Amino acid sequence: VPSPYVLLIEGAPDPLAAKPAIGMLRYRRRDVAALLDPKHAGSTAEAVLGIGGDVPVVASLDDVRAGGVVIGTAPGGGRLDPALRRSVRDALARGLEVVNGLHELVGDDPELRALAARTGAPVRDLRRPPARLALSENRARHAPCFRIHTVGTDGCVGKMTVALELTAALAREGVDARFLATGQTGMLISGGGVAVDAIPADFVAGAIEAEVLARRDAEVLVIEGQGSLAHPQFSAVTLGLLHGCAPDALVLCGDATRTGYRGCDGTPPSLDALVELYVRMASLIHPARAIAVALRTAGLDDAGARRALADATARTGLPAADALRFGCAPLVAAARAARGR
Amino acid sequence: VPSPYVLLIEGAPDPLAAKPAIGMLRYRRRDVAALLDPKHAGSTAEAVLGIGGDVPVVASLDDVRAGGVVIGTAPGGGRLDPALRRSVRDALARGLEVVNGLHELVGDDPELRALAARTGAPVRDLRRPPARLALSENRARHAPCFRIHTVGTDGCVGKMTVALELTAALAREGVDARFLATGQTGMLISGGGVAVDAIPADFVAGAIEAEVLARRDAEVLVIEGQGSLAHPQFSAVTLGLLHGCAPDALVLCGDATRTGYRGCDGTPPSLDALVELYVRMASLIHPARAIAVALRTAGLDDAGARRALADATARTGLPAADALRFGCAPLVAAARAARGR
Repeated sequence: VPSPYVLLIEGAPDPLAAKPAIGMLRYRRRDVAALLDPKHAGSTAEAVLGIGGDVPVVASLDDVRAGGVVIGTAPGGGRLDPALRRSVRDALARGLEVVNGLHELVGDDPELRALAARTGAPVRDLRRPPARLALSENRARHAPCFRIHTVGTDGCVGKMTVALELTAALAREGVDARFLATGQTGMLISGGGVAVDAIPADFVAGAIEAEVLARRDAEVLVIEGQGSLAHPQFSAVTLGLLHGCAPDALVLCGDATRTGYRGCDGTPPSLDALVELYVRMASLIHPARAIAVALRTAGLDDAGARRALADATARTGLPAADALRFGCAPLVAAARAARGR
Repeated sequence: VPSPYVLLIEGAPDPLAAKPAIGMLRYRRRDVAALLDPKHAGSTAEAVLGIGGDVPVVASLDDVRAGGVVIGTAPGGGRLDPALRRSVRDALARGLEVVNGLHELVGDDPELRALAARTGAPVRDLRRPPARLALSENRARHAPCFRIHTVGTDGCVGKMTVALELTAALAREGVDARFLATGQTGMLISGGGVAVDAIPADFVAGAIEAEVLARRDAEVLVIEGQGSLAHPQFSAVTLGLLHGCAPDALVLCGDATRTGYRGCDGTPPSLDALVELYVRMASLIHPARAIAVALRTAGLDDAGARRALADATARTGLPAADALRFGCAPLVAAARAARGR
């Protein structure tokens, strides 16, 4: 692996839009050389994104030694904007690997592809659908692994993070727990999985089924969720994933301070309504139950965060945790109890 | 339009798998010159597919004068099998237009594309996603047209046919009713629409939203449904479509004699459970109500068909019709009543 990487974060309207960069800084920090964003050059990752300590922000690839670049933003719709394109071109011209999680594929762009071919720069498009697509055969439900799926109230509420934290916590207790990435950031971090939102809709369930079956011998498989069943933009992705992975247990992820959808008109149903909705829709394929709620409480003080978690428990009857803030012991206990049944 | 077309039906395991051919024979028969299937050469469409009268079945393109060929089968997964490929190659070599509704695109196949380029044969891949894909903006719900969506218990239960019949019946009564195709056969018949199942999952809702907004000035828009919310293979397509088109009214389509899913392990929920499920999932985006049930009763005698319709009404509290067998007056009445509210 030609690490360390420079993370391109130009044009991110807010830290949440820099999800891939934040994921790399949280879980693969040793592989990060710098962030690139002329607007913040001279600053640090911590100052700009609230994570990453003194990882420097640079103005140009001239200012850092790197093996490759990673597109660190994840704008809705996934287009390569002009500033990003300039940096990608610059990286390819230097022969550096480009890792891209946007819907717009670098390897399919005539100019960028030609440039990569000329310099030999490797291109990794995380959202390129697998070459072999197949319809689901409704088989994940028979896999022996215990399947926990993190589902959500919206995008960017911590479904990937909760899945990673829970996997790591279970592994620390000696469980053969594995994380299954279903989006570009999870793939960056884990090195495997599939970006379900870029797959032709007919094949979403089949694509995740194949990934589950490839890990069928795990004791616990923790499958990252996407979008929300009630989300006007992403519900197709959410339901195909839910049905394709046939979970035994669901963890509902939400954000304690968000009211409407992020970047889209509309408001999610309440936590208890969503718990019931996910259980019902999942159980059309395979009996599932909700085991916990995981809340993002950033923006609240500790007392407010504890109150939000208690409220979530009161509303849903489920244990609630903010895995990053207070640890995920309640999630681990819930997973163990559900699996023990 | 270089009609008439020859419909390629080689390899169709059963008449339902020849959906595009049956749709063309039912709604665009004047554009059909022949069916091509060496196994049945010398027979007629009526004898082979149960529709199409004396339209001949030929063994080769030598045996008929045609302006183009249409792939008349719709196998699950949408691959171009060797027999079909041979016929497509033959058509392209003669410079004939090829119209293809499979997931496997003729225009992306190196051999076939090169052949088409050499002879100038036009290629129309109905499942090629639109060039501009965008996330839904959750705007279809504000369009002034009254939106009726045919949803289903499974694939191949008549969602397209019911939508076409209802549109035509409303139009006969002077309503500006328009049909919106969401699959390859509906597109063949109507000449418009979008094949939602081939679109990257993130963009399904946005793609159908755009089609609805383009027809916003219709009085009634009848939107063809796809798959089923409970179907292990197709639920992603179904939900993205349901949320993207934001229907006011739903017609649930089913098959009176089918028990399990067609070509897939599992059994659909009951009609009443599905009515409730569709209404609930649609209403997450926009208030919807179910107005009727439409059953396919082929395989039953008239008395049995009437009994099946009465049972469906008893179970759901909704008027029920087999539009092809007994006409769709009950559906028209239900649509008028719902719109009048």
